[in-house]
Amino acid sequence: MAGANKSGQLQLLDFWVSPFGQRCRIALDEKGLPYEYLEQDLGGNKSELLLRSNPVHKKIPVLLHDGRPVCESLIILHYLDEAFPTSAPLLPPDAYARAQARFWADYVDKKVYDCGTRLWKLKGEPQAQARAEMVEILRTLDGALGDQEFFGGGAFGLADVALVPFTSWFHAYERFGGFSVDEECPRLAAWAKRCAQRPSVAKHLTPPDKVYDFICGLKKRFGIE
Amino acid sequence: MAGANKSGQLQLLDFWVSPFGQRCRIALDEKGLPYEYLEQDLGGNKSELLLRSNPVHKKIPVLLHDGRPVCESLIILHYLDEAFPTSAPLLPPDAYARAQARFWADYVDKKVYDCGTRLWKLKGEPQAQARAEMVEILRTLDGALGDQEFFGGGAFGLADVALVPFTSWFHAYERFGGFSVDEECPRLAAWAKRCAQRPSVAKHLTPPDKVYDFICGLKKRFGIE
Repeated sequence: MAGANKSGQLQLLDFWVSPFGQRCRIALDEKGLPYEYLEQDLGGNKSELLLRSNPVHKKIPVLLHDGRPVCESLIILHYLDEAFPTSAPLLPPDAYARAQARFWADYVDKKVYDCGTRLWKLKGEPQAQARAEMVEILRTLDGALGDQEFFGGGAFGLADVALVPFTSWFHAYERFGGFSVDEECPRLAAWAKRCAQRPSVAKHLTPPDKVYDFICGLKKRFGIE
Repeated sequence: MAGANKSGQLQLLDFWVSPFGQRCRIALDEKGLPYEYLEQDLGGNKSELLLRSNPVHKKIPVLLHDGRPVCESLIILHYLDEAFPTSAPLLPPDAYARAQARFWADYVDKKVYDCGTRLWKLKGEPQAQARAEMVEILRTLDGALGDQEFFGGGAFGLADVALVPFTSWFHAYERFGGFSVDEECPRLAAWAKRCAQRPSVAKHLTPPDKVYDFICGLKKRFGIE
């Protein structure tokens, strides 16, 4: 049975283009955990399973482990690390390094998606502000990465998993914002290319042009020219 | 020396009325860890120590452990639990129970403060919306608590620490919103009273009338009648 193994059955309620869902898919693959993927209709017709599994936020992703729901992507990543401690850890053993990884994952959560949405939704001065803010966010991440291979040093971990799905959105951010990640943040751009070579990332990231088309579809639906 | 023990020196950069800072103070006391409290000026004159310790957000609370900064209150709580694993744990051992505790702590982070601010800053229909939302948030928390002693069952833990400082703000929310937590959420109100009996909570929570006065001061400063 799909998603079933000796550690129990794993199912992921998700939506194809969601960077938050992709975090979970990447983590599941990194940890070598088979799971059943359950694509959700996020239009006006949310499934009874989604509403029952996440009655508070009514959002994907939701991980079901033997039917028990875990919600919110970063909490799901922590859960996977703690429920399956023998497979590739997302968090390092050192308490301070763990706090640093959480800080950058939390920074991505608080900043990137919201600013990216303002970038394609707004016009004029508010849009210019979102553009400046996005460049600042990406430069801050570029500075945090520095010359390391990954955010935590030599191992692909929590902060990398949190940010990497957004690299597929960079192309759209660049087009709507009129800037270049390669030029503004060369170390971050090189990191994105390194991450893309991992099978887990290559498999689950949406091609950048598909993300761009998806956003154009949203703009059309919201009546934004 | 204040804040020094065999596990290293702990210092907390904080601001007296901050519910986020109070989370850290309560956790430090629960874990029996001595620390040096460093009150910060959050007006136009932030200290060089704060700006250097949290260059990204420039916010309190910041925990310094032998001079190394940890930022963001929930990350500080996790750090304390992991760096000092032998003292009273904030998170239970079971992976699923940990995910549940994190979910509710995260819910408090995403909902309460922001909605509370709208409650005292706005007027008319937007204020009425914030009021309805706050009652819904508190009812959701009341439902999550149910008939348990604490959010995680019998032990005072992460979700309790995350929410309890806001109980000092309930009085202000009630006055600005025109509702009663006792009436809307009797189980949550009883939980707040239980928590208030803990020395760590009793010591660090701001008296509700002082929180109300603080908010009135903010309203005056922002020119809100």
